[in-house]
Amino acid sequence: MNEPSSALLTDLYQLTMLQAYFDEGMADTAVFECFVRGLPAGRDFLVAAGLEQVLEYVEQLHFTPDELDWLAAQQRFTPAFLDFLKEFRFSGDIHAMPEGTLFYPNEPMLRVTAPIAQAQLIESRLINLLHFQSVVASKAVRCVLAAPGKLLVDFGLRRTHGAEAGLLAARACYLAGYNGTATVQAGLRFGIPVYGTMAHSYIEAHATEVEAFQRFAVSQPGNVVLLIDTYDTEAAARKVAALAPRLAQQGIRIKSVRLDSGDLLAHARAVRAILDEAGQSGIGIFCSGNLDEYELQRLLVAGAPIDGFGVGTRVDTSSDSPYLDCVYKLQEYAGQPRRKRSEGKATWPGRKQVYRFYDEDGRFDHDVVAPEDDPPVGTPLLHCCMRQGRRVGPAVALADIRRHVANQLQQLPATVPHCVEIAPTLQALAERLDRQAH
Amino acid sequence: MNEPSSALLTDLYQLTMLQAYFDEGMADTAVFECFVRGLPAGRDFLVAAGLEQVLEYVEQLHFTPDELDWLAAQQRFTPAFLDFLKEFRFSGDIHAMPEGTLFYPNEPMLRVTAPIAQAQLIESRLINLLHFQSVVASKAVRCVLAAPGKLLVDFGLRRTHGAEAGLLAARACYLAGYNGTATVQAGLRFGIPVYGTMAHSYIEAHATEVEAFQRFAVSQPGNVVLLIDTYDTEAAARKVAALAPRLAQQGIRIKSVRLDSGDLLAHARAVRAILDEAGQSGIGIFCSGNLDEYELQRLLVAGAPIDGFGVGTRVDTSSDSPYLDCVYKLQEYAGQPRRKRSEGKATWPGRKQVYRFYDEDGRFDHDVVAPEDDPPVGTPLLHCCMRQGRRVGPAVALADIRRHVANQLQQLPATVPHCVEIAPTLQALAERLDRQAH
Repeated sequence: MNEPSSALLTDLYQLTMLQAYFDEGMADTAVFECFVRGLPAGRDFLVAAGLEQVLEYVEQLHFTPDELDWLAAQQRFTPAFLDFLKEFRFSGDIHAMPEGTLFYPNEPMLRVTAPIAQAQLIESRLINLLHFQSVVASKAVRCVLAAPGKLLVDFGLRRTHGAEAGLLAARACYLAGYNGTATVQAGLRFGIPVYGTMAHSYIEAHATEVEAFQRFAVSQPGNVVLLIDTYDTEAAARKVAALAPRLAQQGIRIKSVRLDSGDLLAHARAVRAILDEAGQSGIGIFCSGNLDEYELQRLLVAGAPIDGFGVGTRVDTSSDSPYLDCVYKLQEYAGQPRRKRSEGKATWPGRKQVYRFYDEDGRFDHDVVAPEDDPPVGTPLLHCCMRQGRRVGPAVALADIRRHVANQLQQLPATVPHCVEIAPTLQALAERLDRQAH
Repeated sequence: MNEPSSALLTDLYQLTMLQAYFDEGMADTAVFECFVRGLPAGRDFLVAAGLEQVLEYVEQLHFTPDELDWLAAQQRFTPAFLDFLKEFRFSGDIHAMPEGTLFYPNEPMLRVTAPIAQAQLIESRLINLLHFQSVVASKAVRCVLAAPGKLLVDFGLRRTHGAEAGLLAARACYLAGYNGTATVQAGLRFGIPVYGTMAHSYIEAHATEVEAFQRFAVSQPGNVVLLIDTYDTEAAARKVAALAPRLAQQGIRIKSVRLDSGDLLAHARAVRAILDEAGQSGIGIFCSGNLDEYELQRLLVAGAPIDGFGVGTRVDTSSDSPYLDCVYKLQEYAGQPRRKRSEGKATWPGRKQVYRFYDEDGRFDHDVVAPEDDPPVGTPLLHCCMRQGRRVGPAVALADIRRHVANQLQQLPATVPHCVEIAPTLQALAERLDRQAH
């Protein structure tokens, strides 16, 4: 994002732990990994997204004088510690799956190697950024798979969870394969193609639908998509069919009509018939309203004559699963692997790499999670993207991330679930740690 | 929020409609109302929240030179229209339910009266702000009702949908009745009490649990909440019981222990017994991990000896219903009431007021939605909060909003669903409009 994230966009326990580490003189290197514990219902795989925003965040991370003053006023922290925060910068390494990588539970999607205070402080915002875009991209890609060759536009801003959610949802949908977004600022920020024409209020503000259609077409001759469900969808379609030749005389082409309510399958069929009968088969049909991958599939399997979809709320909030069990866990400190053993939440210890194996047709076969210092097998998915607080290479273009997703969709395994193996050496390490007393 | 929202944080169709209105010379007064079409499953009422952020947004709304340059480069808009945008400010009126008002479907929670371009442009961000905080407050208040007298702390930042979602979720939870949040920046921005101690990583970074407990207590003597589920919860509870007298000799009191995994009911009982047996009944038990109102109720009905809860992801994403069918609809233009008749999405036309009626015990009896110019009945819920682009009165303190919610929880009706009547005069108006041709 253009606005830097505040260093206080974190949980208080990060700062109380940092104060304790400071008091104890604990400043050795820590290794944390970010991963998802399980797939939610209705997802066969996940799409890693948000890395670019994570790198921007850690690059600019610092405490402002106002923030330090506020912290001092809380009387929780020592003056010496606040001086330490004044100089605080992130100087560690980050390894991650490239954005757009398809991934599975228990696979680290990102690893941070840094002095423990640095690696700890960034946890909350790092998860916040990686989690949300991965949630949305993993949902949006299902719409892409459900509606091949159809125009898909993100319509979700208004019911996303705040400004950043709206912008980052547009980005996540686009990298997943959408054609664009209705959110104007996402066009400016990320270069995403922006789509949009009119709301029902525009129709209602005019005395008649035809007047509204005609005036809009004259005002926006290159972008004539007419919303036809304000009063009576089929009646409006007939008005459009009658208007089209008159507009054509002025050199204005009606690109499509939009349906936003009722039985979209029945209306699309009726409208298609009305337009075709009037010789207007060049006018497309665009639909919106409570859409998700299930509804897209239902409509298209039924042969609905629909050319494009505005998909909003359900994808941008990932409404059937608005969160992932995404965590960031200490795996090593001061050179020693660490393991949490909490019930149902045990972690695989140590620095790890994820290897992908492909079958002879180039499709995903299985993945292996192994200790990083094991001899490499398969194709490694984690790559170094930040070293000593500096990016390795330039930011990846959003178009390249989008292409990376599209390529992998061609490589998706035929079988579900995809197998993620834990290397025997990693299992042995975990067992060894479990024998230690704490 | 402190950062102003960009005027481009809107849907493209707002700008294309504005261009058309500009070309047509349509600049009469429009009235839009924001309301929710229906209750999601698992909600008996909703809590209106986000008004303060809406007022901040419209007060500062303008297009920056960079934004205008970018719009010009899109070649969708005329130079004259871009000049109009350069001077664009919001100069209208806003009537709204005070933040924290309990409300029901089909009741306008906010009304905008302004020149149509102004009232139209703000739609996307206005819904974005009102919708999200209302979603979260309406979920969080259910936890408050489920856990009376218990400490409730928002733990959700990491899995909220972005930075603004994290901050505004903290605000929504607090006004709903939580005691505070873990999100530090929400403390700075909104003055919300901030809570937090340690993560599993802190325990794991030390050679033993006892060493971690002891060192943390010495570093943060006023804030000793020890996380005891990293390896073995009951074993850790025994370590805490043994440590407490030693810390007491240094004048340090262990406030509570935290459980974050496994069967919280069974562990809380076992830990309570261990601590009580050791004479440490003053140490409280605080729980976290996948909590929501259902889990709080289950635990407390079962008599779990738990003193407080950290509630995060499920409430901050409102995971069982991450959105409301919240809309903003044109109800009047140029003095004439308007009505959308789309299937399943018809609106009640004209400017409206919501009246609440109370029974003799002071509890909600029913509400009436009526045309604004009908003679007043009952207690009106919509009040003028902005006139000609300027706030009426100072911002309402968050503590007062929180008290307003708490007061209404005492007035909640015994019967569900609550009855919302549409005044006969409003029904007659709708019928009259339906006879008009479009």
